[in-house]
Amino acid sequence: MRAVALGGGHGLHATLSALRRLTPDVTAVVTVADDGGSSGRLRRELGLLPPGDLRKALAALAGDGEEETLWSTVFQHRFGGTGALAGHAVGNLVLAALMEILHDPVAALAEAARLLGLTGRVLPMCTEPIDIEADVTGLDEDPAAVRRIRGQVAVATTPGQVRRIRLQAPGGPDHVPKACEAAVQAVLDADVVLLGPGSWFTSVLPHLLVPELHEALIDTSASRMVVLNLVPQPGETAGFSPERHLDVLCEHAPRLRVDAVIADADSVSTPDRLRTAAESLGARLRLDSIATAGARERHDPVALAESLLGALAG
Amino acid sequence: MRAVALGGGHGLHATLSALRRLTPDVTAVVTVADDGGSSGRLRRELGLLPPGDLRKALAALAGDGEEETLWSTVFQHRFGGTGALAGHAVGNLVLAALMEILHDPVAALAEAARLLGLTGRVLPMCTEPIDIEADVTGLDEDPAAVRRIRGQVAVATTPGQVRRIRLQAPGGPDHVPKACEAAVQAVLDADVVLLGPGSWFTSVLPHLLVPELHEALIDTSASRMVVLNLVPQPGETAGFSPERHLDVLCEHAPRLRVDAVIADADSVSTPDRLRTAAESLGARLRLDSIATAGARERHDPVALAESLLGALAG
Repeated sequence: MRAVALGGGHGLHATLSALRRLTPDVTAVVTVADDGGSSGRLRRELGLLPPGDLRKALAALAGDGEEETLWSTVFQHRFGGTGALAGHAVGNLVLAALMEILHDPVAALAEAARLLGLTGRVLPMCTEPIDIEADVTGLDEDPAAVRRIRGQVAVATTPGQVRRIRLQAPGGPDHVPKACEAAVQAVLDADVVLLGPGSWFTSVLPHLLVPELHEALIDTSASRMVVLNLVPQPGETAGFSPERHLDVLCEHAPRLRVDAVIADADSVSTPDRLRTAAESLGARLRLDSIATAGARERHDPVALAESLLGALAG
Repeated sequence: MRAVALGGGHGLHATLSALRRLTPDVTAVVTVADDGGSSGRLRRELGLLPPGDLRKALAALAGDGEEETLWSTVFQHRFGGTGALAGHAVGNLVLAALMEILHDPVAALAEAARLLGLTGRVLPMCTEPIDIEADVTGLDEDPAAVRRIRGQVAVATTPGQVRRIRLQAPGGPDHVPKACEAAVQAVLDADVVLLGPGSWFTSVLPHLLVPELHEALIDTSASRMVVLNLVPQPGETAGFSPERHLDVLCEHAPRLRVDAVIADADSVSTPDRLRTAAESLGARLRLDSIATAGARERHDPVALAESLLGALAG
């Protein structure tokens, strides 16, 4: 089974950890809009794709041999202290070097994948760094006033309500973000494609705003599944109900049909409303217990894998 | 044949490049006194062994398969630009991370060696960072006035005349630098041990000032060879004749006997004086053409390997 998971950060880590239990043919398609932390510093300093979400996806798919585990630990290691390196993840630095040397992020990721003994592969959504711009309300006295907020960190942490996002490609507002060709092909060739969980506006929806990737998601014969978050994200989706997540998805990709929506049973207070929202996308709703015991904000990879299998059989 | 080369920087790179043509059993024992550049920044920021000379030795012994060549290129890659990372070699950052994770520089170097497909191995002279302190004359109006200069960069670039060096271990002037045990054992087990070429006071002599390494160099049954520099080093050995290099070696290790002194024939203007200086150490002098054609400041690895073979044949 060829599986593709689109996303970024911890949410993508969860789906990759689940998918690798089901198939060795997993492709992660990763947002490249991060402008904060170690990634943001590298992006500004070296003009490269922000590597942090790529690194996290590599770690989620890394092999479990002794050497692979060590290099995965090295990749995830962050320098401490108070100096110029503080906070940099070593894998970000290695990915940056590979991208500088090979002049091709896909080739750079393939080399990192070989080092880490990857199950599957990791691809960027676009081969150039992207900026997220959001229309946000609630930042002014006038509740209807809409402000443009730019940058992943700013959007993810806004105290306002995010209404809509756009992507800004390098080169100005007229430039359309160019998809990574291999990512487009992976979506077209897939048997199952997963969207979410994750920061909805800044990690999940951006893929839908890359035109070639959007079309591939509509054209693919793969089963399309949406995995909802366990808890609303403070900032960008504070107070959002599960069904509101689906509404926002639909607003950003009205032509997208979905086969299944997977949510954690205990995280949904109004299942009927969510079922209706899912059905309006063409999807069956599947409610399972997929949170980690004792850490309810994280998906349990074993339970999520079982739920995905059920949805595929369903 | 078990060969050990002691040194640092470009000089050690030259002997390692020659030795790997003669035997797969090469051990580099590397100075850890660097306080400049990327290494100095890492040493100060993270409190680790300065990794730069270790990285260069790894690169000199790296395998030539496709993957090994790529990772060797990554290790030697330096970030450009004008930001916080500018000038850092990626291998220095990876070695720093391995040392932080494994809490053991020897284990960290073994992992890097595996990644790079090393011929032989690389060991630090000591497992803690060391400072070089030098007695230097010629810095004052009074030509006999002796000043203490501290730090590898300061000693290597002093406009005065370096008379003698000492090592300062962490913990203050009463602390004796502790040798890396594996390096001591490598010297004791060796068939041939090479000192030099390299920055004489800051890369070659420091090994002789680590007591356990000093004793091992005296006790070993290996052939002891000294390879002289092609040109005097501006700063620390400006104006030094080849025989003055041997005199300084003898002043720092009076009990050390040497089997052969290897020098480039065209770099020696007074071979008789050099022969006398070599003989006072117990050594035969061997004059060969060992400079690189068109880059006379660099040893030619093929010619140096042949010269070493000749010296071994005696």
